[in-house]
Amino acid sequence: MNHALKWLGLAAGVFCSTAFAADSEALRERALNNFGVIPTEAPEIKGNKLTEEKVELGKMLFFEPRLSSSHIISCNTCHNVGMGGHDYLPVSIGHGWQKGPRNSPTVLNAVFNAAQFWDGRAADLAEQAKGPVQAGVEMSSTPARVEATLKSMPDYVRRFEASFPSEENPVSFDNMAAAIEAFEATLITPDAPFDQFLRGQDDALNQQEKEGLALFMDKGCAGCHGGVNFGGQNYFPFGLVSRPGADVLPPGDKGRFAVTDTVSDEYVFRAAPLRNIELTAPYFHSGAVWSLEEAVSLMGTAQLGTELNEKEVADISAFLRTLTGKTPEVVYPQLPPSTDETPRPVDTVQYE
Amino acid sequence: MNHALKWLGLAAGVFCSTAFAADSEALRERALNNFGVIPTEAPEIKGNKLTEEKVELGKMLFFEPRLSSSHIISCNTCHNVGMGGHDYLPVSIGHGWQKGPRNSPTVLNAVFNAAQFWDGRAADLAEQAKGPVQAGVEMSSTPARVEATLKSMPDYVRRFEASFPSEENPVSFDNMAAAIEAFEATLITPDAPFDQFLRGQDDALNQQEKEGLALFMDKGCAGCHGGVNFGGQNYFPFGLVSRPGADVLPPGDKGRFAVTDTVSDEYVFRAAPLRNIELTAPYFHSGAVWSLEEAVSLMGTAQLGTELNEKEVADISAFLRTLTGKTPEVVYPQLPPSTDETPRPVDTVQYE
Repeated sequence: MNHALKWLGLAAGVFCSTAFAADSEALRERALNNFGVIPTEAPEIKGNKLTEEKVELGKMLFFEPRLSSSHIISCNTCHNVGMGGHDYLPVSIGHGWQKGPRNSPTVLNAVFNAAQFWDGRAADLAEQAKGPVQAGVEMSSTPARVEATLKSMPDYVRRFEASFPSEENPVSFDNMAAAIEAFEATLITPDAPFDQFLRGQDDALNQQEKEGLALFMDKGCAGCHGGVNFGGQNYFPFGLVSRPGADVLPPGDKGRFAVTDTVSDEYVFRAAPLRNIELTAPYFHSGAVWSLEEAVSLMGTAQLGTELNEKEVADISAFLRTLTGKTPEVVYPQLPPSTDETPRPVDTVQYE
Repeated sequence: MNHALKWLGLAAGVFCSTAFAADSEALRERALNNFGVIPTEAPEIKGNKLTEEKVELGKMLFFEPRLSSSHIISCNTCHNVGMGGHDYLPVSIGHGWQKGPRNSPTVLNAVFNAAQFWDGRAADLAEQAKGPVQAGVEMSSTPARVEATLKSMPDYVRRFEASFPSEENPVSFDNMAAAIEAFEATLITPDAPFDQFLRGQDDALNQQEKEGLALFMDKGCAGCHGGVNFGGQNYFPFGLVSRPGADVLPPGDKGRFAVTDTVSDEYVFRAAPLRNIELTAPYFHSGAVWSLEEAVSLMGTAQLGTELNEKEVADISAFLRTLTGKTPEVVYPQLPPSTDETPRPVDTVQYE
């Protein structure tokens, strides 16, 4: 290479990196407008102050299999904090080895969702927590059984008293849910590469990931998957433009229709929050799709009416993988021993 | 109270406390002879050096539900480190909601047992770990499936290479077991009140607990439940003197007979290790007895031919509760995401 060419190369390099820096700045600006900055601390929850005692109690309850009537299923069974806050299953397995109706959503960053469950039928995490505990196909317990269980262990009674100090009846099903909500509010992942990029670190995303981010906004994905959790804020028909097959969208599950009883809510679901999407295959409420690339491509046709080409799918997927954050450290809680008053596990039928 | 009486009282107090101190010394001496001092660090394991990498890998595998073909059962499901290392069930529930044949033994201090399982059929924890992974009623997987699963995730491959550096084929079913053994060897509880007493702290046990300890040795309990783990060293017929009823000793489970095929091993089981017994109800291989007092009383008649009176049962039980130690802190491991190569969970039959 002669000198002239070398200088030309260097100049081009400088130009490019300046151009990229300018690109990064513009991209960051757009991304900030679309998504905003995720809080780095657990957000405040109206009517449920997060105290140290309550968060610790909530952690114990989150890992407490005796909240299920079989004594083997805890919140963590399907929302595993070591596996992206879910269970890597199409649909979860619960009491009596029954399958649940829908894919288990991640508990990570769930506090940022406008409502809980795929159909938004619970307004918040406390309301959500009461569902699976009672669902026959999940933990199959009852509020009365849960309260009897918790009241049977002096350590739990003390901890409920310390967590709900001004209450007359601190050991209650409602307070179980409030404590679990308090713990879950701490399960946020605000330090993904994307977040580092938003905070000004240009090289936190590589060129492909930046192009993927731009595409994610240009193509319209961010229209439904906006906000700090990249979704979880609103409801949309699955198959807005073109309805996918029955394998992905089983006709029996009409989504939010079951909540609102309104025809226009047929096959309407909450836009899935996409943080840590790399860790939460298989995808969709049906859990029918294992590949992130396939899911992205399917969203293009079903929701946007766009055939994304191979490079676009790869770029968007690469970008989505920059939403993988670090799950907060969770020290396994020590649960108190059962006592003579603790309800025994239900006599479980053996299926053969 | 007049002065003379006061002095008399004081003198008696001094005398008593000296007498108790002397008693404590003698009791400690006897206890040291019967049980020895539990190590405060994970013991060395022949042929399986405990490195930091291997222990951490073993912890991941211990919590890894993808070692089961359903992807919902991990070692921790039945040997819960937050619940005394077991599951508070008579017998565990496994694949397809099947019940296991025997009560799940605690993983805590299991490294100190001479052999593993109720019938001692595994020589060590590594051999043990291979059992449940393959058992149809437990995790229902195969060595080939496990190896394919682990090889599908680059993070596991790197960790196996770091844990078994000189080996040609580090990601193997055998090494999975070795890593789990390494982690389990760290699950020891050497700081129970009893251990503090052995180390010279007289008031670590109260008077009733000391009397219980003396009775435990006087009555012959320590004959089978000796050594640092208070059992786990040898095999004895259940019902040495008087066979308990079929509810506690189901006739279909002949214990060690199935291992040795020797008639004299009918209904022979490994003496259960008693550390953390307070945390491991229900008791016996059948898991038929929930009350510690009832279990102690039953052992008196069945094994010693002694009707322990109510006070003796209470004292021995109080002493046994001083064997409850502090489970080591376990930070929940972050497991790598499944990849396209990871074997999918088996299509699970739904039982209705």
